[in-house]
Amino acid sequence: MILTVTLNTALDITYRTAALTPHATNRVAEVSERPGGKGINVARVLAALGHESVVTGFVGGRTGDALRELLAAEGPGGQPAHAAVSDALVTDALVPIAGTTRRTIAVVDETTGDTTQLNEPGPTVTPAEWAAFLTSYEELAARADAVALCGSLPPGIHVGAYAELVRLARAAGRPVLLDTSGEPLRRGIAARPDLVKPNADELAQLTGSREPLRATRDARRRGGRSVVASLGAAGLLAATPDGSWRAAPPTAVRGNPTGAGDSAVAGLLSGLVERLPWPERLARAVALSAATVLAPAAGEFDREAYADLLPRVAVTEQSSQPEQESHAPRQHR
Amino acid sequence: MILTVTLNTALDITYRTAALTPHATNRVAEVSERPGGKGINVARVLAALGHESVVTGFVGGRTGDALRELLAAEGPGGQPAHAAVSDALVTDALVPIAGTTRRTIAVVDETTGDTTQLNEPGPTVTPAEWAAFLTSYEELAARADAVALCGSLPPGIHVGAYAELVRLARAAGRPVLLDTSGEPLRRGIAARPDLVKPNADELAQLTGSREPLRATRDARRRGGRSVVASLGAAGLLAATPDGSWRAAPPTAVRGNPTGAGDSAVAGLLSGLVERLPWPERLARAVALSAATVLAPAAGEFDREAYADLLPRVAVTEQSSQPEQESHAPRQHR
Repeated sequence: MILTVTLNTALDITYRTAALTPHATNRVAEVSERPGGKGINVARVLAALGHESVVTGFVGGRTGDALRELLAAEGPGGQPAHAAVSDALVTDALVPIAGTTRRTIAVVDETTGDTTQLNEPGPTVTPAEWAAFLTSYEELAARADAVALCGSLPPGIHVGAYAELVRLARAAGRPVLLDTSGEPLRRGIAARPDLVKPNADELAQLTGSREPLRATRDARRRGGRSVVASLGAAGLLAATPDGSWRAAPPTAVRGNPTGAGDSAVAGLLSGLVERLPWPERLARAVALSAATVLAPAAGEFDREAYADLLPRVAVTEQSSQPEQESHAPRQHR
Repeated sequence: MILTVTLNTALDITYRTAALTPHATNRVAEVSERPGGKGINVARVLAALGHESVVTGFVGGRTGDALRELLAAEGPGGQPAHAAVSDALVTDALVPIAGTTRRTIAVVDETTGDTTQLNEPGPTVTPAEWAAFLTSYEELAARADAVALCGSLPPGIHVGAYAELVRLARAAGRPVLLDTSGEPLRRGIAARPDLVKPNADELAQLTGSREPLRATRDARRRGGRSVVASLGAAGLLAATPDGSWRAAPPTAVRGNPTGAGDSAVAGLLSGLVERLPWPERLARAVALSAATVLAPAAGEFDREAYADLLPRVAVTEQSSQPEQESHAPRQHR
């Protein structure tokens, strides 16, 4: 079982409009809702890959009720009834809170295909709710083959929360992946997660460098045992104890990038649990990510495109310079 | 008691953002929710003016539950606890349906002050639900001093629905106001409501004329016993059996026009029930409308501004030409 943590879950709402006109009244042609937040998206893709997953984090209020109902209604792997029988289940272990789960609204302009995203801040989590979560998290992490910590922190959660969750997973001997940004990433990486997956902006914010290879290796020195940077259409760049690789899709894909990073996380996590060599993990992550961009629905991946892309991802090893010093995580304030 | 009908109620959500950037991710700084839909807004203003009101229409799903809870939590007149003790109550007589009440989202850009509105289409109402509504409506209308029919029709409701409701109110001997647009207005006005309140666009669409006095008188010939056109910052233009008037605020006001039309409807309805002469009704409607534009919160009116503006509204009689032919509503398809 893989445990994914989404502290700031969301009811993801998609509005389709003929065209979004700012500062005017826009009629929404079509409304759809699904359970959201990065960890929930990761779990859905993991299940589609045949990995049982458990989602935890916080949920509350009417939007929280809607989220749980939609999560329970999803078939294995988050797919409708026709899904492959090999799909595994997503189990709801979300912790109830008094506050109300946030909404995110994606307004899809059908003329341009562009999306305007509106993200509510999320409920304030109380210290007692955080304590209840920690108790549940420790029990779940102890049973997990891997743990993924995903997304932003809701109001009320201390900025070192991910560092605390990384340490607890490591104390339980479980591999832990961290996918967040800003100060929670800076604090979390210092607690030495097994894997961090920043995008180019998050990596530049963390390290001060826009040169991906340099920044990725710097992130390792800050405490990430392995660092996989997502470089958008250019694919992934990985710096690991076993070496550094670039993995790129055969052609640049056009579509909706929503959820592409979450699919990459699912690819990396499943590869970790299956003990695949790094090049295979990276190829899977890149193919899943590109197949997510190509899928018509935001956050889902196109299974046929995935099968087609997987053998065609180019993985190339980077400078074999050992960089011994980077293997010993540096102490960091 | 004044009965207001909102067939397409809404949970009105307001998002405050530092600046709305289309085709990007926007963080919402502040979220607020209130019961919405034109008839509910009208009832709130009526209550603030001391008139007991009853709201009916359809409500369903989690957003419908939220709407009812917020409606029940509102103090008299929709105001918080410090409200004037003279405020009257808004009573919930909404009819439950299987579908889910729509959301409307107003995204307020705090840099420009502009609002981008996103309106969901609303639930589909079944024939059985419409029949249940009609039974309830007839009972409520029979007890009402006046009836207001407000806003758009949800999917599933036949385009002649307002015409049907106008006829039922007239059969019960109750004065009825119609505030809608497009084909529902065209059909509804032919059923001879006592009052219609189109804005300039709705009036032009109905009559084909952009010349307000001509169009207003044409709308009377189509069946409206009295027609009050709202001309935005220019105020109101009324064509009635007693004569025609223009009513204009002392100065053009700047602010958020959301709900200004609903406040004008409340002013007209309260004046009708209080049997005020037309010039006083129009002055009240214009002052309420301008005080709504000036209020910081969308759809509320600034009570001090209302008291200040009311005696300063200029009401001028238009051409005293009797236009006898226009008093007899023409039969219309």
